[in-house]
Order: sequence, then structure tokens, then C-alpha cells
Amino acid sequence: MVVEKVILAYSGGLDTSCILKWLLEQRYEVICVLADVGQQENFEAARQKALKIGAKEVIVADIKQQFAEQYIWPAIQMGLIYEERYLLGTSLARPCISVALIEAARRHGAKYLAHGATGKGNDQVRFELCAYALQPDLKIIAPWRDVEFCRRFQGRQDLIAYAQLHGIEVTAKPATPWSTDANMLHISYESGVLEDPNTVAPSSLYELTLDPFTQAPKTPHRVCVHFEHGLPTKVADLVTSRLYSTPLEMLKYLNELGGSYGIGRIDIVENRYVGLKSRGVYETPAGTILYAAHQDLEVFALDREVLRTKQLLRDRMSDYVYNGYWFSPEALYVRRCIQLAQQQVTGQVTMELAPGYCRAIARKAADAVAALYNQQLVSMDVHGGYVPQDAGGFIAINAVRVREHVRAFGPYQTDQN
Amino acid sequence: MVVEKVILAYSGGLDTSCILKWLLEQRYEVICVLADVGQQENFEAARQKALKIGAKEVIVADIKQQFAEQYIWPAIQMGLIYEERYLLGTSLARPCISVALIEAARRHGAKYLAHGATGKGNDQVRFELCAYALQPDLKIIAPWRDVEFCRRFQGRQDLIAYAQLHGIEVTAKPATPWSTDANMLHISYESGVLEDPNTVAPSSLYELTLDPFTQAPKTPHRVCVHFEHGLPTKVADLVTSRLYSTPLEMLKYLNELGGSYGIGRIDIVENRYVGLKSRGVYETPAGTILYAAHQDLEVFALDREVLRTKQLLRDRMSDYVYNGYWFSPEALYVRRCIQLAQQQVTGQVTMELAPGYCRAIARKAADAVAALYNQQLVSMDVHGGYVPQDAGGFIAINAVRVREHVRAFGPYQTDQN
Amino acid sequence: MVVEKVILAYSGGLDTSCILKWLLEQRYEVICVLADVGQQENFEAARQKALKIGAKEVIVADIKQQFAEQYIWPAIQMGLIYEERYLLGTSLARPCISVALIEAARRHGAKYLAHGATGKGNDQVRFELCAYALQPDLKIIAPWRDVEFCRRFQGRQDLIAYAQLHGIEVTAKPATPWSTDANMLHISYESGVLEDPNTVAPSSLYELTLDPFTQAPKTPHRVCVHFEHGLPTKVADLVTSRLYSTPLEMLKYLNELGGSYGIGRIDIVENRYVGLKSRGVYETPAGTILYAAHQDLEVFALDREVLRTKQLLRDRMSDYVYNGYWFSPEALYVRRCIQLAQQQVTGQVTMELAPGYCRAIARKAADAVAALYNQQLVSMDVHGGYVPQDAGGFIAINAVRVREHVRAFGPYQTDQN
Amino acid sequence: MVVEKVILAYSGGLDTSCILKWLLEQRYEVICVLADVGQQENFEAARQKALKIGAKEVIVADIKQQFAEQYIWPAIQMGLIYEERYLLGTSLARPCISVALIEAARRHGAKYLAHGATGKGNDQVRFELCAYALQPDLKIIAPWRDVEFCRRFQGRQDLIAYAQLHGIEVTAKPATPWSTDANMLHISYESGVLEDPNTVAPSSLYELTLDPFTQAPKTPHRVCVHFEHGLPTKVADLVTSRLYSTPLEMLKYLNELGGSYGIGRIDIVENRYVGLKSRGVYETPAGTILYAAHQDLEVFALDREVLRTKQLLRDRMSDYVYNGYWFSPEALYVRRCIQLAQQQVTGQVTMELAPGYCRAIARKAADAVAALYNQQLVSMDVHGGYVPQDAGGFIAINAVRVREHVRAFGPYQTDQN
Repeated sequence: MVVEKVILAYSGGLDTSCILKWLLEQRYEVICVLADVGQQENFEAARQKALKIGAKEVIVADIKQQFAEQYIWPAIQMGLIYEERYLLGTSLARPCISVALIEAARRHGAKYLAHGATGKGNDQVRFELCAYALQPDLKIIAPWRDVEFCRRFQGRQDLIAYAQLHGIEVTAKPATPWSTDANMLHISYESGVLEDPNTVAPSSLYELTLDPFTQAPKTPHRVCVHFEHGLPTKVADLVTSRLYSTPLEMLKYLNELGGSYGIGRIDIVENRYVGLKSRGVYETPAGTILYAAHQDLEVFALDREVLRTKQLLRDRMSDYVYNGYWFSPEALYVRRCIQLAQQQVTGQVTMELAPGYCRAIARKAADAVAALYNQQLVSMDVHGGYVPQDAGGFIAINAVRVREHVRAFGPYQTDQN
Repeated sequence: MVVEKVILAYSGGLDTSCILKWLLEQRYEVICVLADVGQQENFEAARQKALKIGAKEVIVADIKQQFAEQYIWPAIQMGLIYEERYLLGTSLARPCISVALIEAARRHGAKYLAHGATGKGNDQVRFELCAYALQPDLKIIAPWRDVEFCRRFQGRQDLIAYAQLHGIEVTAKPATPWSTDANMLHISYESGVLEDPNTVAPSSLYELTLDPFTQAPKTPHRVCVHFEHGLPTKVADLVTSRLYSTPLEMLKYLNELGGSYGIGRIDIVENRYVGLKSRGVYETPAGTILYAAHQDLEVFALDREVLRTKQLLRDRMSDYVYNGYWFSPEALYVRRCIQLAQQQVTGQVTMELAPGYCRAIARKAADAVAALYNQQLVSMDVHGGYVPQDAGGFIAINAVRVREHVRAFGPYQTDQN
Repeated sequence: MVVEKVILAYSGGLDTSCILKWLLEQRYEVICVLADVGQQENFEAARQKALKIGAKEVIVADIKQQFAEQYIWPAIQMGLIYEERYLLGTSLARPCISVALIEAARRHGAKYLAHGATGKGNDQVRFELCAYALQPDLKIIAPWRDVEFCRRFQGRQDLIAYAQLHGIEVTAKPATPWSTDANMLHISYESGVLEDPNTVAPSSLYELTLDPFTQAPKTPHRVCVHFEHGLPTKVADLVTSRLYSTPLEMLKYLNELGGSYGIGRIDIVENRYVGLKSRGVYETPAGTILYAAHQDLEVFALDREVLRTKQLLRDRMSDYVYNGYWFSPEALYVRRCIQLAQQQVTGQVTMELAPGYCRAIARKAADAVAALYNQQLVSMDVHGGYVPQDAGGFIAINAVRVREHVRAFGPYQTDQN
Repeated sequence: MVVEKVILAYSGGLDTSCILKWLLEQRYEVICVLADVGQQENFEAARQKALKIGAKEVIVADIKQQFAEQYIWPAIQMGLIYEERYLLGTSLARPCISVALIEAARRHGAKYLAHGATGKGNDQVRFELCAYALQPDLKIIAPWRDVEFCRRFQGRQDLIAYAQLHGIEVTAKPATPWSTDANMLHISYESGVLEDPNTVAPSSLYELTLDPFTQAPKTPHRVCVHFEHGLPTKVADLVTSRLYSTPLEMLKYLNELGGSYGIGRIDIVENRYVGLKSRGVYETPAGTILYAAHQDLEVFALDREVLRTKQLLRDRMSDYVYNGYWFSPEALYVRRCIQLAQQQVTGQVTMELAPGYCRAIARKAADAVAALYNQQLVSMDVHGGYVPQDAGGFIAINAVRVREHVRAFGPYQTDQN
């Protein structure tokens, strides 16, 4: 009998450790891939743990740079945001991790890919759509959708018992009553006590951000974010005058500074792709600052009508990414369209960081001439080539339809409600 | 010779006082309308001032309730926001004021309407489109677009000289180096020193909000906002247990509380309808809180696909309102469509107010059964009628297009940028 | 052992007859539902056939009126069309048939619903989404997705052999090398020889329409279609002066007349919901005439900006209906929005029918006053309240952005390609 | 006194001849530009006429090739169509003519541009927006918006009288009771007797197309249109086997062949940019055939979701072009986005031409492999890598929202209307 190889997306935690053992029981040869996307993790310990359980090999893939440059940066450039609030921290990591998984599968000639994502969530969709896109003949093993596996492991207690039975180390750290996903863009929290959307998340939950009231600095802090073609190119700390100029440096710096101010916490209910509504709490310090800075510069830099179209495309792209379609014909296409619009988004934005929030307070184009903001034109004291008298005709012609409606259908109601 | 009557949108300030005098010089009979939309103003003094200049009559129209109930409340219900940041404080006031102006014109049989809006701004468009909509045969006098008037008054100094010449009282208060527009939803600041978008607005500018660092309370404050069909119906102060239940009460209370926390400041560049980009600073304490609470409840309450369509409509409606089309076939139509979607937006949201920002931290439906959030369904520990095995087929079928693209056009690039 | 009842969507053809027998072999009690949606069929013969095979009961549901009034008419009113060409003849029938199936299931207390739709098509999705919507606890039996069934019946020959073995009458009529679906709105043809999209469909294929060249009348024919609120209310034959005024009468008449002219043939490749592209040939005589007439009246009647929003909603609704979401939150919502826009679509359109096509040649509003088309306003010889001089200002202000782009980024290329 | 030079968009007709004379009376030096965009015209006679009236110079600009290659071809590639029916024949010519006008202005150092477009129409907007875009400091003379000119010339009789007075030749040909605009893409008819939208256009009106009943051939004709990246590259006559391979050749050939079949007539009411509704009759033989062929290939070639986005962009671009924004930031942007989507629109479509209409009857990709249509995948007889069992899960998960709606808000109504 041929032993089939399977690539397991391994995290070091209880679930994927049990899945590793279970796969071995099913007589697979298991290669674990541990993706380092910036989460706090003892990767060496996790490696040893997997090897001890029986993994044939454990690959710790440091993909922080790819994640920053090929996923987070384009997302900032495109202004991606899901349902107007969620900055897609997990959604963006999934395709990046999938690339690492597929590369491992190719290198090892594995025909199977296993993951520990649940059957009700978005991550199963993201991993598997990416896998099908990148390696269409790959077969997926999703234990949490396997009837037999689910019957055996009906809750956390079953996993713990199984782990203890098989000598799998169970972390001493007491489990939090919620689940988390962490990477260099965010930490997310969901499930458990958070499932009641009317229960306030405990303040002890937050890991990436300090409490804005009790722990944040008492004075604001200004940074200047520079963009070229919509991509952040450097961040200047206006207090220390330090410059940060690689994506990894900028993210690290803004996560630390933003985190110290408690910036980037959101608590939302969102619509999952599989049709459920779920509640999530997220911390995204650097992402929040960069998103706000980019948004400010974009409205400043783009023609109004170009902006309108870009926003439509952005909304579509946000849905694509959330739903797992990073690698898809539509995402490829829309991404290129959005990037076309970013050619002129070049300049800098001064952000004020404060406990719990940040906001843009000043902005300028890299080249004052090659910029649509025209101080002379808008000035009340200068004409600047604009002829105020023209506005009368502009209004009158725009009023034609408005008045025709009255002629045909009678007066507008003014006390409608 | 028949003396023509003109209704003047009068503010009590230097500009419209000079315009009043100028209209009298042109031999109009002038009826001033001073709209009280909640701004800080000595209306009696303004009335006396206009009468002294020569107004035939001065109408102080208290339209605060109409403004709150027929303009601000629907805007909250519809989730209106311009270019993702501006809550339309001035845009919403203009149609409300226009109704008062038109009513005065009808009562007095006036054929003319005069206003002091500039020729480069949005307000001229809003006033005039509303006027044409409500009284299609009304004639507009816009002195700031009148060649003769503009030649005579080339700057503030000319206005002051003219005022002094004609015994028009010039306020002792030194003019700010920017212009403002205030009402119960917001105060806006633009022009003057703000015209350079890279100049940080002076902290002395803010009138409605305290400084979040130096003046705001040091502890957060929670309020619970209740909605029916997307409209706020009451606000509960979770500290004092006080209830606020009319639109006017809620606005006043949230403006004071939110203002004390410095909530609702934005500093943006926006795209005017007349084709210019301009910089504006806005303070909208109550509006910011209500907007965020409504947004939270809406995503919680609406079906995902209904929400997608509603947001498209919302973006269109925001543009209509900003551009002055409150009374128009398209705004009438889209407003009714959005309101249809709000039937199920009934419930409550707990908001945490903090220095400089607020955020939703908990929410629930008014009727837990008649609500789309389904805690049992989303729970990781319960099936709740959802069959995880189905997700495999869901993903595989959704992957068909994604894989076909690879078959036809080759592999997705994974290092694209 | 309890015998479970199953409702079978029965057509009288080979497939569903074999499925009926197969279900009986699986020990189900089978109630056949034969929906009469206007297709040419000997319903009594089909009933006898099913009873002979062993159906417990056969329900012939005459749902022609429901189909016309509750599905086709709203589709005309909404202007539904899929990918700009397909008038949704099959997509609209599916929810109507599903209602009949569910009613039968309720009446008989059946817990199962079986259908003969294939595993690659849209109809399985439409039937099942409707079933889940109307009776969420119903269980579906889809033999063409059943591994066992598919192994047994790998092609038409297997079905014929099975039928002969079990004494199931196989129609003498030789099978066409394509499959069809017929109802009072259209006949569709797909599969078989049509699978090569570059093979011209044989002229013998068309059943509902005569050949425009060789069989159609040599002179055109005019009809006048009257609409109220976007719904056709009567059709006048301008040659015979006959009036047709119920949906069933109008459809029958226009199908016959339009069919005699060969109107309504299309040959397209379309995108299925399950991710495949498929080629279909359709004949939709009455639908084509009514669609074109409604489109003409709608542009005539609606304000331009209302029309723009309505079209966006229409495109979404067309996708919903094609994909099987007739009963869904989003279709309910968008349908109500579109219907709001149809309140003013009242009037009549004169259509010229000609061999192979039809077109609008004249139209008028039911009430010339309460209509947006304004002959006086548009006339070159009358001003009609429109001041041509205003257009200069209208253009100049609209040019502001266009010119600013040149100032900032240089001249537009005029030889771009 | 300096004599100012003005470029006049001259047609040779009564209006622009009188305008030429009138401009001379205003003491301008007039350079006439007669753009040859493929209309039937005696350009030499028109030149002599203008010179005789007093034009300083007459430039006959043969811009047929530019019009075909840089305007019509991109429009076909983008699938542009206004309000779903109008193929933009006039709208596309305007920017092309404007380029010729501006080039003349530059060459002659003229500061003024005059045109004969009316004050209620779209063409004034198109000419002037293009002029402002291409030469922002150019000054426009629009006599039909000039109060003095309009007072003097209140109707056609005044023009004739003025012409006779000044020895301007008035064409012997009796004026049609409508106005026309002709070029190689279409002829349009409007005004006069057509202003009543319920009056059928007289059959004598049509110039480019024969009567489908009485004059067209009695047998259909097939042509094959080849596309690369969405652009037509050649047309093969499948009867004569002749090939046409430049844009000019293809247009000429398809106009003649299509015209002989009476293809491409439409009679519509449309929404003008200036807020009026107007009735137009159009003949567009070649454009209709190319539009339909491109549409067919595009749906065949593009991924479904890419197509959805492309259509949104197409609708926007159609409005831009109709409204005169060919040269604008938004048109530049959206055009590039649409062109990105056309990279894979390469293949051929067989069109059947018949009296009064044409339709696609077969199509194939240039490269059968690099194409999304997958005959094997869609075949009912082959699996082709598609697993029918997956569809059950696909439907069930998509049903989650649909069922949740029922749980929360009760059953869908099935007899709604």
C-alpha cells in the first residue's frame, strides 16, 4: 500500500496537534507547515511538538515579508475594508499561507492538504479556494467536516483527552473562552463568550493594544505617512524624527506605537460567506493608521469621478478577499483596475495618534503642481480661472429634471417621513 | 414702478447684512428669513439689526424640530455619509432652510429669493435646486455671482467699509481666519488659513467639542441607542440611567456628552459638486455617535445581500444630498428604497464614548427571534441545523470558475505586485 | 418500517419515469406532480403512465395562471434579462413549479422532494433553493447527484434498457439530439449537438417560431401594448382591432403572432450559476415583444437618474432569478424597490412585428400631462421655460474637473489606442 | 483693432453658413473646418460656398480613419451603448471632430471656436467639453445661445431670408421636416415631425437602410467577424468568401450589406444630458452587427464575475461618452479598465444577417485551449472534472441565508404581487 503524503497547516495548538495524530492514524505521512506571518509563537517548540507526535517533517515558513509586501501593502493600496469596518487581517493571511502550503506540497509531491479550519467558518473556504486555484488537482482533508472525526471529537474535552492519551502536550496556559487568530496585521477574537453579541468583550482580551484610558500615553503623537502610487513608502515619526521605510519596519513600528495608544480596536457582527452572521473583535493598530492615511490621500489626489468608480471596485475587491477569492479571475482583474487608479496617489499625510483613535490632520501631494487640489482655484479671494457666473447656468440646467418632475407629478412633499 | 419683494436668507452676519442693504439700494422690498437650525445666535439682535438696516420684515423661523425629524433622522436611518467621512451637516440643513424660505416667499407673494452663498461653493447649488424644486418659477438673486456686486465687494474690507458707511453694525468679535457654518448637527470650518490642506487646523478652532487630551473626562461613558426601523427612538445614559427620547433631546444630549469627549472631529479634503476640491474641518458629536450605532445595528440586522444593495443606494443618496438634490425624483425614489430596507433595523446598540472617539461594544435585536443573528447557528459547539459537510461542495462548486481560469490561462502568479 | 413519502417533479419523459421507478425500488411512496406551465403535453397520458409505473398519486397542477400573473408579469415589469439577452423563461418557471411541489408535499405530509435535474445545471439549484425557502425542513432527493444512481445510469441507453425491463413506455418519437424545456414563456434547447458553440443550430430545432424567411408573413403587423405601473394590461392588434386583456390571453396571442413571424430566437453562451459556461438556444416570442415594449415605455416615462438606479437593481434581480433566488431576502427587497419605480410607467407602445424581430415605433403616456416627456420643452422652435444661455454655465462648471486634470497631469492624448 | 480669429465647425448647410456670415459681421476672421467623418457631402462645393461667403480659409479635414480607429473601434471593444439601445453614433464623432477643430485653432492661433449646435442639445456640451479639455483657454462662440443671435433668427425662415439677403446659396433640395446628423457609423433623425413620440417615423426618412420588407434580399447572409482583444480585426463574407480587414473597409462593407438588409434601425426616446427627453430615430447598420458580434464573443470569453464588473464599467463609460466626457479623467480611467478586460476577447462570431435584424449563431475562441468555454466540462455525458455531488453542498450552504430569513421573519409569500 502506498502511503499518501499530506501537507498539514499546523499551528502548534491543540486542534492541529490532534489532527496531526489523527492523520497519522489514518496512515498518512504528514508534513507540517507552520507559517510565520508575524504571530507571537515559539516556532521551535511547535516544531519539536509536531515531530514528537510523528510528523515526517516540519517546515517553519517565514513568510512575513511576502505577507507584508504582497498582501498587506496591496490591501492598503486598494483601501480594502469589509462591510466598512473589518480590515481583513485574517482574510489576507490565508492566501499567503496557502502559497507556502502549496509550495510544500509541490516540493514533497503531496496530493493532500489538511487544515484545521471549522466547517462553519470562512477560513476553510479561503484555504481551499486558494489551494484549488494554485494546485487544481490537490485533494483537501478538512477533519472538522469529516463525519467520523466530528463524531469522535465533539468538544474541546475530547481533544484534550485524545491528546493526553497520545502524549500530546497540552499547553499549561488556560484556554481563553474565545478563539484567536494572530498575525502581523491583526489579532482576531471570536466564539465562546463572544458569541452573544450583546456581551461586552472583557478588557483582558486585548493583546495587541493597550487600554486607551488607563495605559495609553497622555499626549498625542504625530507621524507622517508617505505614499507612492497608493503604496506606503515610508513613515516618519514627527516626534523622534525616525524614519521607517520597509513594509516590515513600518508595520512593526506602527503596531507598537498604535498599540501603545490602543488604536484599532473594533467589535462587530459580520456576514460570513457561508451565510452566517458572526461576532468578531479585532485589533489592527498599524492597519488602521495606514488605512486612514491612505483614504485621506486618495480623496485628496483622485478626480471625483475616478474616485467613485474606484470605490465601487474596492467594495467588490473587499468581498472577493473576504470570501477567499484572492486568486480568481475577478480579483486579478479588479486589482489591476484599482492599481491603475492609484498612479496619482502620491504624497504624504500627517496622522495624529491619540488614545483609541487616529486621524488625518494634514496632507500634501509629492508634487504640488501635478496634483488636483488647487488652492488658488478654491480660494474665496481669488478667481483662479473659475467664473462664478457660470454656476447659475450650471444650477439651472441641473434643475431641469427637478422641475419637470414637479410639472408632471406635482409638488414635492416637504413633510415626508 | 412696482416694488418687487425678495426673500433674503439672512444670517445676521456681515455678508448678508451688506447684501440686505445692497438689495434695498436695488429698490427691492426685502423680507429677511433667519432660520434657527440650532446654531448659537442672538436671533433677537439679528432681527433688530436687519430691521434697522431696512428690512420690511424679519422672520425668525424656528425649524429645529423639522431639521431634526425630517432631515437628520432620515439621514441617520439611511446611513448617509459623503466620501466615507463627512456626515452632511450643512447639506442636510439647506433643504430644510429652503422650505422655510419658500414658505415665506409664498406668504408674502415674493418672486425673488436672495442668498449670500458664494459662487464656488455647494450651498448656492443646494439653495437654488431646492428653490427650483419647491417653487419652480422663483427667481434667484445670488449677489456673489453678480458681476457688479463682485466688482464692488472684492474682499472683506470692502464689506466693512460699506457697512460702516451705512451704519451697519460690524461685530466687535474679531473675525476668525476661516468661515463657519453651524447647526444642531455640526459646525463646519473652511477657507482662510484652512485652504492649505497641509496646515494643521489650530486647536482654538473647535467650538462644539472639547480637546480630547486636555479637557475630556478621563473615564469612558456608555450609552445605549435604541432604533426602530432604523430611526433612533431613545438613548439611555448607562451611567445616569437617564432616558432621552425625542430627536431634539437626543441630539442635544449626545452633542453635549459627545462634545465633552471631543468626539466627531474630522479634517478632510472633499470634492465639491462644482468640480473643486476643498478642505473642511467638521465637528459632529451626536451625528458621529448615532451614525456608528446605526451602522453597527444595520450589519447585525440585515441580510448580507440586502445590505450590499442598500449600501449602493446609500452611496448614491449621499451624493444626491451633498449635491443639493434632496428634492429630486432620484432622491425621492432612493430614499423610499432605503427605508424599505430599514424595516428590520430594530434593536439597540451599546456605545462606548471615549476621548476623541466612540465605538459599538454590544448590540441586540428588539426581538431575539425575529432577528437574523443566530447564536445557535454560529456556535462552534452546536450544529444548529447547519451541516458542515455541505461546505465542501460549496467550496468545490465555487472553485469551478477559479480552476477553469487556470486551465485556460495558466497558473495564477503568486508574487505579483 | 415506515414508508416515506416523496413528491416527484414528474414530466412524463424517460428520465423522470425511470426516477419514479427507481424511487419505488428504494421503497418510497411516490406522489408525482406534473406542472402545467403551458408546455405542449398530453397530461392525461403522462398521468396514466406514472400510475402504471406505480405512483401512489399523480397531481396535474394547472399553474398557468399563477405562472403568467405572479412570475412572468413581474419579470416584464422589472425588465428582467440575464446577461443582456436571456429572458429567463426556465428560471421563472422553477419557483412557480416549486410552489406546486411544496403544496403537494404539505398536503401529503411528504418529507422528501425528488427532481430529475442534472448535477451540472441551474435547475437543481433553483428547485432546491425554492424548496428550502418554502419548506426549510424538506429533504431533497436528486438522483442525478446520487453516486449509486449515476453509476447505474451512465447514459440514455441505460435508461431505455431500464425502462424496457420495467415495462415503462418509451416514446416512439425519436429523441432529438438536444434537450428542451418548454413553457408558455419560451422553449429552450441545449446539450447534445448544441454543446459545440460553433455549430449552427439546425433549423428543424425551432418549435415555437416559424422560419422568418420562408414561413413568416411578408408584411409587418402592428400591435399596441398598454401598461399600467409597468405591467401589461392589454394588447390591441392594430390590424384586426382585437383586444387581449388577461395575461394568459396576451401571452397566447403574442406567442402565436410573434411565433408566426419568427420573433424571439436567440442563440447564446451563458454563464451558469455553478460556474460553467453553456450554450443555449431559446425561443421567446411574446416575451421578446413585451420586453421591448416595456423597455421603450420605461425610458420614456422615468426620470433619467431614477432609471439609472432601477437598471442597477434590475441587473441584480436578473442574476437572483437566474441563480434560483426568487424566494430570498434580496429578491423580495429588490423587487419591491423596482416596483416602486414602476408607478409612473403607464402608457402605451406601438410595436412593429416583422419577420425575425420587432421594434417600438411610437409611444405615449396614458396621461399626457403627468408624463416627463415634454414636447414643448424639447422643441427647437419653442423655449418652453428652458433658457439656452444657461447651458454655457452648465458646460463651463462641468468642465472644471476636466480642465484641472490637464493642469495637473498634462494634455489628453488624442491618438490613444 | 485686432481682428480675432475664430474656427467655425462648418457643415455647408444653411445654419452654419448664416453663422459664418454673422461672425464676419461681428468682425471675426473665420476659418471654416469641414470634418469628413464619412457623411455624404459635396465637400468641394461646401468649401466654395464658405469661401464665397467670406471665410478666410476652409479646411476639409478627412478624419474618417481616425474616427474609425480611435473612436468607433474602441466603442465596439468597450461595448458602449446608451440606455441599452443607442450606439452613440453622434456622441463618438464629436470628440473626433473636436480634435480637428482644435488642431486648426492651434495652427492658426485662433482663440475662438464657434459651432452651430443648439442650446437644448447634447452636441454643444460635447464640443465644448472636448474643447475645454484639449485647449483649456479657448473661448467658445455658440450663436444659438447668444441672445442677440436668437432674437434675430427665430426660425428657419429668418435664416433663409438672411441667406438670400447676403447671396448665400440655399439648397434647392426641400428641407426635410426633421434634422439629421450623418457619419460613417450612423445617421440620426430628430426634431420636427419626430417631436411627437407617438407619430410613426415616415418610411421615406431612412437613408442608410433599405426597407426590410420591400427592398431587402429574401435570403439571409452570413458573415464571420473576427476579434482580437475585443477589437474587430477582419470580417469574412461567408457567401462570397471576401475578407475585409481594415476598420474603414469593415465599416463600409457592413454598412452596405447591413443597410441592404435594413439592419440597425431604432426609434427611441432618450434622456439628454441637459435634462430633457427627446425622440430620435437612428440607422446604424455596421455598428449593430459589430456590437452584437462583440457582445456574443464577450460573454463567451470572459469569466462571469469579470463580465459583471466590466458591464458596470461599460454602463458608466456609455454615459460619459454620451454626455461629452470622452476626454476626461473618468473616461481615461474607465476605458483603460475595460480594455484590461478585453485581453481575452479573441475569437470569431458567425452572424446571420436577415431583413431588419442580425443575430449571432455560432462562435469560437481563437485558441480552443486558452478559452473558458469548456465543452467537456459542460457536457451531460462527461464529468470533465466536475463532481455533481458537490452541488448539493453548494446549494445547501447558499440556502443558509434563505432559510434564516424564514426562521426570523416567517414564510415567503407565494402569491405576492
